[in-house]
Amino acid sequence: MESPKKLRIALDAMGGDCAPEREIAGAVKALESSNNKFDIVLIGDEQAIRQQLTLQRAEKYSFSIVHTSQVITMGDSPTAALKQKKDSSLAVGMHLHKEGKVDAVVSAGNTGAVLSAATLILGRVNGVSRPTIGTFIPAEHGSTLLVDAGANVDCRAQHLYEFAVMGSIYVQLLLKKARPAVGLLNVGEEKSKGTEAVREAHKLLSESNLNFIGNVEGRDILKSTADVVVCDGFVGNVI
Amino acid sequence: MESPKKLRIALDAMGGDCAPEREIAGAVKALESSNNKFDIVLIGDEQAIRQQLTLQRAEKYSFSIVHTSQVITMGDSPTAALKQKKDSSLAVGMHLHKEGKVDAVVSAGNTGAVLSAATLILGRVNGVSRPTIGTFIPAEHGSTLLVDAGANVDCRAQHLYEFAVMGSIYVQLLLKKARPAVGLLNVGEEKSKGTEAVREAHKLLSESNLNFIGNVEGRDILKSTADVVVCDGFVGNVI
Repeated sequence: MESPKKLRIALDAMGGDCAPEREIAGAVKALESSNNKFDIVLIGDEQAIRQQLTLQRAEKYSFSIVHTSQVITMGDSPTAALKQKKDSSLAVGMHLHKEGKVDAVVSAGNTGAVLSAATLILGRVNGVSRPTIGTFIPAEHGSTLLVDAGANVDCRAQHLYEFAVMGSIYVQLLLKKARPAVGLLNVGEEKSKGTEAVREAHKLLSESNLNFIGNVEGRDILKSTADVVVCDGFVGNVI
Repeated sequence: MESPKKLRIALDAMGGDCAPEREIAGAVKALESSNNKFDIVLIGDEQAIRQQLTLQRAEKYSFSIVHTSQVITMGDSPTAALKQKKDSSLAVGMHLHKEGKVDAVVSAGNTGAVLSAATLILGRVNGVSRPTIGTFIPAEHGSTLLVDAGANVDCRAQHLYEFAVMGSIYVQLLLKKARPAVGLLNVGEEKSKGTEAVREAHKLLSESNLNFIGNVEGRDILKSTADVVVCDGFVGNVI
């Protein structure tokens, strides 16, 4: 019998502000703390990556390296960058995922470009109108998942509803909670409160089979009132 | 020559969660710490007010008392309450202001009712479409005025612009800053960021004679990047 296949993770080694130094350090930490649970594919400038591996005495780890010649910067326009920088670490990583050669892509780079690349190259799951960003925020009892934490500034009720569904599934799988409590971020508890989109989202969530506990307020994020707190990406970014 | 006239302040003694106990305690503290700078008119149930004055040994202070028989509660619908509770402490206080018998009204009660009473009874200054709530938030260097902190959940660009004007004047007068720095709360520094209303507000503010420093982000509120931070009341409430 085969041993269970390791997860293969593509890491955009050129993504962050101090790339690839921090990326390599993070990859090493991930392998060490997980007892080599993953296969990590480092994507980026091979010379810069090998230099860091030497500097950090990390040659003993069996990273794969995929060389790319371009980098999408924080100042790049996401969609333009994806068109022009086909050999960027981000685009190449997403293509590896698309082709089934890795199981996930991790990047600390230009958020808009990461979202665009995922949407354009990988596509969306059926029923999902827009990708979203979920962020775990430390709270009184464990963590609260805030979703959307900044991907979509203008949201309709249907988007908020879909974020709730995705957030609920994410918490179910990651934190092993059978029925995560979902709260809708609002300015008060009453269902009559909030903008039109939020009031309509309250209706959609009430009629759903999610474990919807109603509106929650800003302070509730830290009070562990809900496992998942749903808001638009403007509010989520400000939080 | 007459000595300068004292400010006359109407205090809604029935407004807060622990009224009138906290209101009386606050009134006493205000007089003591300001060396009797104000005349305070306590508005509410006279018996309850006199009882608290006795309990708190505050009979020596020369409060005026205006008796009212009704109270607007936190659960009351603002506009309905104002129609039905004409003899509420809040409504009577606003009418005293309207008649020039006091210079200001202070209430810790139902926010919506306070805003509605101010708008319906006192009216608005010419050029102001909507009243707003400004809240000083402690920051690295002094305080940042957040405006709107919760009065208007749906805002157009013109409203945000007016909040900026009001906030700027308020900080000018209260903190004696000649040209308060005004920031527009957004998800990034670039003027292309944000919702349509926020992008349009950026344009209005750029063309104004305010000291507009551009977009600021959530973290900037605590960093004293701006003296006045402008946002809609949904975001402001969550903050």
